[in-house]
Amino acid sequence: MRQRLIAEGVGTAMLLISVIGSGIMGVSLADGNAAITLLANAIATGCMLYIIITVLGPISGAHFNPAVTLAFYLRGDMTRGIALGYVAAQIAGGLIGVWATHAMFDLPILQTSTTLHRSGLAQWWSEILATLGLLFVIFGGLRSRPETVPTLVALYITGAYWFTASTSFANPAVTIARGFSDTFAGIYPGHIPAFVIAQIIAAIFAHRLFKSFFRP
Amino acid sequence: MRQRLIAEGVGTAMLLISVIGSGIMGVSLADGNAAITLLANAIATGCMLYIIITVLGPISGAHFNPAVTLAFYLRGDMTRGIALGYVAAQIAGGLIGVWATHAMFDLPILQTSTTLHRSGLAQWWSEILATLGLLFVIFGGLRSRPETVPTLVALYITGAYWFTASTSFANPAVTIARGFSDTFAGIYPGHIPAFVIAQIIAAIFAHRLFKSFFRP
Amino acid sequence: MRQRLIAEGVGTAMLLISVIGSGIMGVSLADGNAAITLLANAIATGCMLYIIITVLGPISGAHFNPAVTLAFYLRGDMTRGIALGYVAAQIAGGLIGVWATHAMFDLPILQTSTTLHRSGLAQWWSEILATLGLLFVIFGGLRSRPETVPTLVALYITGAYWFTASTSFANPAVTIARGFSDTFAGIYPGHIPAFVIAQIIAAIFAHRLFKSFFRP
Amino acid sequence: MRQRLIAEGVGTAMLLISVIGSGIMGVSLADGNAAITLLANAIATGCMLYIIITVLGPISGAHFNPAVTLAFYLRGDMTRGIALGYVAAQIAGGLIGVWATHAMFDLPILQTSTTLHRSGLAQWWSEILATLGLLFVIFGGLRSRPETVPTLVALYITGAYWFTASTSFANPAVTIARGFSDTFAGIYPGHIPAFVIAQIIAAIFAHRLFKSFFRP
Repeated sequence: MRQRLIAEGVGTAMLLISVIGSGIMGVSLADGNAAITLLANAIATGCMLYIIITVLGPISGAHFNPAVTLAFYLRGDMTRGIALGYVAAQIAGGLIGVWATHAMFDLPILQTSTTLHRSGLAQWWSEILATLGLLFVIFGGLRSRPETVPTLVALYITGAYWFTASTSFANPAVTIARGFSDTFAGIYPGHIPAFVIAQIIAAIFAHRLFKSFFRP
Repeated sequence: MRQRLIAEGVGTAMLLISVIGSGIMGVSLADGNAAITLLANAIATGCMLYIIITVLGPISGAHFNPAVTLAFYLRGDMTRGIALGYVAAQIAGGLIGVWATHAMFDLPILQTSTTLHRSGLAQWWSEILATLGLLFVIFGGLRSRPETVPTLVALYITGAYWFTASTSFANPAVTIARGFSDTFAGIYPGHIPAFVIAQIIAAIFAHRLFKSFFRP
Repeated sequence: MRQRLIAEGVGTAMLLISVIGSGIMGVSLADGNAAITLLANAIATGCMLYIIITVLGPISGAHFNPAVTLAFYLRGDMTRGIALGYVAAQIAGGLIGVWATHAMFDLPILQTSTTLHRSGLAQWWSEILATLGLLFVIFGGLRSRPETVPTLVALYITGAYWFTASTSFANPAVTIARGFSDTFAGIYPGHIPAFVIAQIIAAIFAHRLFKSFFRP
Repeated sequence: MRQRLIAEGVGTAMLLISVIGSGIMGVSLADGNAAITLLANAIATGCMLYIIITVLGPISGAHFNPAVTLAFYLRGDMTRGIALGYVAAQIAGGLIGVWATHAMFDLPILQTSTTLHRSGLAQWWSEILATLGLLFVIFGGLRSRPETVPTLVALYITGAYWFTASTSFANPAVTIARGFSDTFAGIYPGHIPAFVIAQIIAAIFAHRLFKSFFRP
């Protein structure tokens, strides 16, 4: 059990390093062209997702995302206690990842984001779709070709940075962690709760929707 | 049967979300550099194609494209009734995908494109080549290494956004749906029929051409 | 035999469509930033290489390149007659690919390149290294993990567009065909012979070098 | 043994060609936009890593990195003599790769870098994290899905160019070789020792950390 929680924490930390770090690097090099920054951000995050799901999947199942853990819990694949342990490890890991990244880029470790455009009905609808899509990919992939799940999730997020209006947070632990970085990938902390609620709604809805559609 | 039609509709909706969404995001970030927008557009679409073909392939065969359905029908792999059901689901799914995307980006849901450069002989020739190439990849891949078809189609479209002059619509359902979005990926509705005819001609031609070349 | 020659011709035509087409598209969209054009050029070519090697490999072996055919001939894998047939099909296919692309982009079909910077000792050294690297990848990959050869060649050329000074023509049929396009990917016809000689030298050298190194 | 050392030398030379060459090409084309250069640099390096690990893995194990060799030595997988031979071949190969690249781009063969920003606590912390991550990927991948190691390492470095502040040298042989190129990828020679020490610290630490975590 301890090993599984460490895997969830380490994996989520690595995920946040890729999200926050590539955003900072992008802004510092892209000469104000946000599209190039987002491209680097999307590619770096996709690379990391493939890695952590492939390497840590056999240990913890490679959730790194409370919405994913919730969906597996609703399916009856985990006890409530383990699910809560996973979520705690993910949130802690996410924060550690953000802070480790700030140290690398010589920025103040403790920050909160001032990015204000991640709010409003359209953004929340975007997060619902983004999270639904992520769970579609995971549960559908597990049914059709489980060995492709690392690739599926990596490509989904790389694409969804671009095709969703919110750049697909789709992950409450990532959302919370990004509140603590006043850099490209940040989100104003006051806007976190609505994002997390949208993600949880999508997880519950996904569970009902895909249970019968992707039954073996 | 109902599950197969849902799969075709959902898959085509997801495809359009990737095409339209990444185009909107690209324009809003790329500071007028259309090449960066097209790069993001191509990558996001390729990511999505790999996903929907891998996940939904075992359910519906993952056409998401009336030209592909026509080619399979001509080969005798589907009845006329099922083929028509597929086409209806694809067109409906495409439109729903476009509208869901507009809602995410806080744009008017109902629009028609005013993009006028997607017409003329050269563009139609480009669509014929683009659709021929797509069917070459599908039928050739099914013969040589079927497990690579999701990768083949994804890479083909990612590349063909760049190497064909029309950016490879190559899909009547996608073409119709893109008529209803006045964004980067749009096409003026009056120019849709010629594109669709070019795609159908290519599908019929491809059937004759590849039947013997890729016989087992 | 006829089918194998068609495969070599079609594959080389598709390769040239990807090289020439993405170059034209890049220049027309990239607002003068040649790096973005080369990125699109490299990605589109890599996508196409994966496709044609996967799909046509079981039919013709998927050379699409007289330098590769020469190396296989030197290894004793082909008769001289078949090798010459391959080379003829590759050169013819390459030219057809260039002309089909010009038609798509509404350009004069017959052109010759005026690009003058692809000459000189450093460029020739680059072509020797580029071709050596390509054959290293093919013969080494065939020995270590043959099923990865389409991926290996695609990634090699995508990378080599960037890490060689000549952008890795590494292929006499491609070099000749590119002489007939006055677009991004062109080469002044007077500079073709030296490139082809460098590529042939590399093929002969590669044969000697890798024969023992990659013996089973 | 001789074949293994040649493989380590050739692979490291090819790695440096990809790192140095794509950096030079990027600067010459990207019109001052360093983000586009780094993107090309990251993609070209990732392509090459997949290639050399796939092709040469069966021969030498495909280290190309004294930090990796040290970690395998600490695990007891190699004798001290072989490990030292590997390191010597890697350093020699790296230098040859740099010089071969300079010749391709018509630059003075012998140079030393004047790039001064690769120093300081934050950069060293970045190198520790980057090297730890690389070894996590290698040892974790070998345990979970060994056939994915070429992909894992390639994606890790492609991403880590962006998400670490030092662009992930993570390799003493590469670090030394980059000291001898006054181009995009260079590092001032006086700053090499601290980078190498950070990488060695990470290798020793990784050995202790992952030995039990990734035990079979």
